[in-house]
Amino acid sequence: MARARSEERRGDIVRAALEVIAERGYRGATLGSVAERVGLTQQGLLHYFPTKEALLVAVLQERDRWDTTGGRDREGWRLDLIESLVEYNAMRPGIVQTFSALLGESVTDGHPARAFFTERYTQVRENMAQVLRLEFGERLGGGLTPEQAAPLLTAVMDGLQYQWLLDPASVDMPAAFRDFVRLLTGGDTSGG
Amino acid sequence: MARARSEERRGDIVRAALEVIAERGYRGATLGSVAERVGLTQQGLLHYFPTKEALLVAVLQERDRWDTTGGRDREGWRLDLIESLVEYNAMRPGIVQTFSALLGESVTDGHPARAFFTERYTQVRENMAQVLRLEFGERLGGGLTPEQAAPLLTAVMDGLQYQWLLDPASVDMPAAFRDFVRLLTGGDTSGG
Repeated sequence: MARARSEERRGDIVRAALEVIAERGYRGATLGSVAERVGLTQQGLLHYFPTKEALLVAVLQERDRWDTTGGRDREGWRLDLIESLVEYNAMRPGIVQTFSALLGESVTDGHPARAFFTERYTQVRENMAQVLRLEFGERLGGGLTPEQAAPLLTAVMDGLQYQWLLDPASVDMPAAFRDFVRLLTGGDTSGG
Repeated sequence: MARARSEERRGDIVRAALEVIAERGYRGATLGSVAERVGLTQQGLLHYFPTKEALLVAVLQERDRWDTTGGRDREGWRLDLIESLVEYNAMRPGIVQTFSALLGESVTDGHPARAFFTERYTQVRENMAQVLRLEFGERLGGGLTPEQAAPLLTAVMDGLQYQWLLDPASVDMPAAFRDFVRLLTGGDTSGG
């Protein structure tokens, strides 16, 4: 019972953090502002999430769960859904900024989010390879296998996010991602 | 004369910072450790570079100058040289980590390195489009124009760096980048 209540409280905090991130971006999402939103003291919040990084990792995990329509269910992933996800991301810069900033930090030595991202990418590459194999079989454009294409698909999503966050007027992230999918699947060469 | 000496001193500091980054990574490259290396007090260093971010931007600019074999000379860029650059990067995780961490920070609101990266990407996309046009003409794989392919090439380089920094044993960055080039240029489908 106490555990259920504690889980519920954690969920409330994560949802409040998502709201604050959407409104104020990565820098604005301080532990203090999240605590205020959810009606806790900062000390009270630290009981559930001891650091800002721990809270942000929980937020990104929650986003991943939503975005993959049911978490572990790989059947739910399709390439056209991933295209839609990139379009959706273009409408929520706050969370994309948070993801990108935390990913950047995570590659530094001893960072608390490093394990989360390392495991996430192992999983994402596996999922992407499975999606590509189910839809396109063993060979994609350039003769690539699904396992060769998966890290590229993932890299393009992440790399475009940085270019788009820095210069949204110059970089049409969803269009660029569709270009990449066309390249990968050997689609129509005359299409717009 | 005073200006020349000041420029020389700045160059010394940037080189020292590159060394410290190579040895100790992004977090280890503190202003104090760089000052010590170059024989200045930290206060003395601040005269040349007022913040760690300003120093790191100068380091990345210097790296870009070296990597592009003469800076503005676009004739010097070729796709096979960019492949070599990715191989070279796989041997210098310290500077790649610094680039990736600072890029991550730069997308947050009001970050001092934001202008540097925004301008850099505008330039890099232009350079890449020019390289691709010179070597492959107006149409690449998937029917993409050089201007459509350039942000993807750039995104793959950056995105693969994050995956590789997090998990170097699982991600062969140079091989993955060559896969992408093969995809982009419609290369041999049976090649390894």
